[in-house]
Amino acid sequence: MKKDHVSNAVIRRLPRYFRHLNDLHDAGVVRISSSALGKSLGATASQIRQDLSCFGEFGQQGYGYNVEALRDEIADIMGLNERHTAIVLGAGNLGRALIENFHFARSGFTLTAAFDVDPAIVGTTIGSVPVHHADTLEELLSRGPADVAVLTVPQRAAQVTADRVTKAGVRGIWNFTNIELTITEPGVIVEDVHFADSLLALSYMISDRDKGN
Amino acid sequence: MKKDHVSNAVIRRLPRYFRHLNDLHDAGVVRISSSALGKSLGATASQIRQDLSCFGEFGQQGYGYNVEALRDEIADIMGLNERHTAIVLGAGNLGRALIENFHFARSGFTLTAAFDVDPAIVGTTIGSVPVHHADTLEELLSRGPADVAVLTVPQRAAQVTADRVTKAGVRGIWNFTNIELTITEPGVIVEDVHFADSLLALSYMISDRDKGN
Repeated sequence: MKKDHVSNAVIRRLPRYFRHLNDLHDAGVVRISSSALGKSLGATASQIRQDLSCFGEFGQQGYGYNVEALRDEIADIMGLNERHTAIVLGAGNLGRALIENFHFARSGFTLTAAFDVDPAIVGTTIGSVPVHHADTLEELLSRGPADVAVLTVPQRAAQVTADRVTKAGVRGIWNFTNIELTITEPGVIVEDVHFADSLLALSYMISDRDKGN
Repeated sequence: MKKDHVSNAVIRRLPRYFRHLNDLHDAGVVRISSSALGKSLGATASQIRQDLSCFGEFGQQGYGYNVEALRDEIADIMGLNERHTAIVLGAGNLGRALIENFHFARSGFTLTAAFDVDPAIVGTTIGSVPVHHADTLEELLSRGPADVAVLTVPQRAAQVTADRVTKAGVRGIWNFTNIELTITEPGVIVEDVHFADSLLALSYMISDRDKGN
């Protein structure tokens, strides 16, 4: 798939496109115009066309997009068909909530293991995911590497855990700790999850509404 | 504060500006140019100036922005100083993780109560937040209304719980259920948290890196 530099803004929009196309497909929609797609996504037709043009040619002039084909192409672009593997570091409340309720498979990930230090949960399984002692992290990663570490440890353990997994070869971190990680290993990609950004946006919208805007 | 229509994209960027200005302030930075601010945020100087111009005049031509003043202005715009109240619906793993670890106060929210149906946790407190039985939701909201309901119930309970809280006067929902809610009450703002979007972006970046781009 031909593409040059794809901006971060486009990367951020792709998952929304994917999600929306999935919904359209589930609702039985076969074809959609870029203007209709844009409208339901709060974007202009030209923005949609421009975003997708980063990845080559989609759709036919005047015929719109085939919903299923476009969805599958976007899935492919996002690496959903590559079956990445992930491990969860910290099986506390948040780690457990993600393991039990988040559909990793739908995002193209297979969850292979969780790690914690709490004797009460080490050795158990959550769903079908075994919880290992954090001391065995390096040993287990040397036997079965993982693409992504989901970081749900307490804040005080965030940096040291990130250091350990990246030294052990993990090259992607999904960071829920709200700690700004310092990464020394090359090629590591950190994706920070900032719950607060979403709540702050809600705060703005509520305040704005209450001012009568 | 004079402003006309503020686009959703700008609203989404404000929390990042706020977070970044907070970090700069903590690092002792007093003044910053729009180009330096843009650079560290992956935006152009003119985008920064344009975004902030939605809310009136900030900074002085040639002098850049006063970091602390700009941060405080943005906090004010986002409604952080209005002390919104929030309740948590569903004190399972995710609800508990948010109550215990998420700094609601830093986003301008006071967490007043949690609700659940599990007899094992109803009547307890998590941190300093009391967990009430979900049956008492309407009664407690009639005595002490809440601005926002944090929705962390299981998916099957998502819509019915949203209906109940909005009928009981709550006008903002922070929705973690991954269910597309249908809202019939007027003026309700729903902010969906889509973990998957963030993981999909990470998936894209990993796949892209591994292809040598």
